[in-house]
Amino acid sequence: MAKRQIAVGIDIGGTNTVFGLVDRDGKIISEGVIKTREFEEIEVFVAALHEKVNVTLRKLGNSTELLGYGIGAPMGNIHNGTIEYPSNLPWKGIIPLADYFAKHTSHHVTITNDANAAAVGEMVYGDAKGMKNFVVITLGSGLGSGFVVDGKLVYGAYGFAGELGHTAIRPGASNRMCGCGRKGCLETYVSASGIKRTVLKIMADSIMDSELRSLSFNELNSKVIHSAALKGDPIALEAFEHTGKMLGFKLADVVAHTDPEAIFLFGGLALAKDLIFEPAREYMEQNLLSIYKGKVKLLPSGLSTHNAAVLGASSLVWSYKEI
Amino acid sequence: MAKRQIAVGIDIGGTNTVFGLVDRDGKIISEGVIKTREFEEIEVFVAALHEKVNVTLRKLGNSTELLGYGIGAPMGNIHNGTIEYPSNLPWKGIIPLADYFAKHTSHHVTITNDANAAAVGEMVYGDAKGMKNFVVITLGSGLGSGFVVDGKLVYGAYGFAGELGHTAIRPGASNRMCGCGRKGCLETYVSASGIKRTVLKIMADSIMDSELRSLSFNELNSKVIHSAALKGDPIALEAFEHTGKMLGFKLADVVAHTDPEAIFLFGGLALAKDLIFEPAREYMEQNLLSIYKGKVKLLPSGLSTHNAAVLGASSLVWSYKEI
Repeated sequence: MAKRQIAVGIDIGGTNTVFGLVDRDGKIISEGVIKTREFEEIEVFVAALHEKVNVTLRKLGNSTELLGYGIGAPMGNIHNGTIEYPSNLPWKGIIPLADYFAKHTSHHVTITNDANAAAVGEMVYGDAKGMKNFVVITLGSGLGSGFVVDGKLVYGAYGFAGELGHTAIRPGASNRMCGCGRKGCLETYVSASGIKRTVLKIMADSIMDSELRSLSFNELNSKVIHSAALKGDPIALEAFEHTGKMLGFKLADVVAHTDPEAIFLFGGLALAKDLIFEPAREYMEQNLLSIYKGKVKLLPSGLSTHNAAVLGASSLVWSYKEI
Repeated sequence: MAKRQIAVGIDIGGTNTVFGLVDRDGKIISEGVIKTREFEEIEVFVAALHEKVNVTLRKLGNSTELLGYGIGAPMGNIHNGTIEYPSNLPWKGIIPLADYFAKHTSHHVTITNDANAAAVGEMVYGDAKGMKNFVVITLGSGLGSGFVVDGKLVYGAYGFAGELGHTAIRPGASNRMCGCGRKGCLETYVSASGIKRTVLKIMADSIMDSELRSLSFNELNSKVIHSAALKGDPIALEAFEHTGKMLGFKLADVVAHTDPEAIFLFGGLALAKDLIFEPAREYMEQNLLSIYKGKVKLLPSGLSTHNAAVLGASSLVWSYKEI
């Protein structure tokens, strides 16, 4: 009997590193987690992670065939197999992650950032199957993006294409400081933390009543704002409207760059559905050149929310095998 | 003796259509022109153009072998072989240009817009030889752009990728009406007409003395402004500074989309060299995420200025043959 082929998907985050063994249909057969924060040395982290994956693999017995490892990590660089100057991980500088893996396995290891992995995941398992030109925007604590052109992920000359979260909303000074050290980046408006900042701005400027006025900045999060908006809270509604507008404005730029068939929104804020999609779609269309109008689909990600990052990472393996 | 292979490059403009017979090294062996405006019917235009090219070809005798036609035209769509809703040509709607050519020739005909043709030209004959990821910005009466990713021009899902001239400079209202019907597009700032508008704005706001104050809007052009700037005219200098800044601001967005190795500036305004390159480079760098800083080369086009558009168009033929 033919063995069931599987890919290992690994999502390296600041707190946890989650992995899954995934089949060609995007089914996660088995999964596991280790605590990223507990490993001061990258070599020890890789050895532990590899061993933990191996143990999980062995439990599956002889019926599976491992094809390779796909890794999504902040500042992951596919060209070099490295993680470069991550701000959120225990390790500093340029980390030759693929080299460390190569000490333990002869399987191919593909590394990229989580937004790029999400884009490949959408193509391999999700709703971008068969699409040749599309964009995935990941809305988490920041804003990431992955661009697919002519059926291939755009990596760029140095492996860092698709940092849409760090395009500025306007020339000149904006008040919003970004974690990257600059001001006015899109992700200071359109992300889980961006919408919190917008809520505070509206509370400061307006005299509208709102249940959000009883919450501190630290207590606020996009779920709370979403649930307030569903109950008709005027500040929460205005915050979603503004967030969608800022997103739509920049999506029009995205279209003018690569003329995609569709743009997928992925992650926390996208779960607010029409609250974010409607203003984003409206403002994108308003800002589109006529040749683009009415053509670009703005869609929710087709990947299941549970462990979508692991799915995305595992998809790199199939993408590498099949292209 | 092996025949010399040549490509026909055709640049369709609102007033004139210029063509050239071009060899693999980018040498224009012979050229000609017909008046676009004089042809009300596209069929007659194509017949006349094809015949004129043929006559020119026959003069070269038996020593050459024709490989195909490359055409640069406003709103040229490579996917469909069409020109779609051009605002500046005698013909309206969707014009199936390749089909009309096919009535006269069995050679392959490739059609795209002039900025895309310039990008392919830079790769085939110019300073982007060997580069896999770069962008060409054409600065003429408008602002065009062509994106090359992984060695291939980006056409997008519908054939209209790379309309950087029609990305907006900021969200919300800007005062500058664009020919496309919207407001605040980059080309209302960064183009031959954009810098004229900026000169008028500065003259309106400031009390600085300037030789440009004696010229009407219709008398102004980028050459006059350039020559004033070279003589130290403060309004001309400020206009170039502002133009370069607006360009640099949007170039930072370009980098965040596709992470190119280089960005080439092509056309009239680019001839002002440091007057435009310095503020553009400075403002681009200021607006770049740290991972991109200091990496992206901002360069003048390596194509000869004379008939660069014909060179660009002809390069489509080699690109089609060799990819």
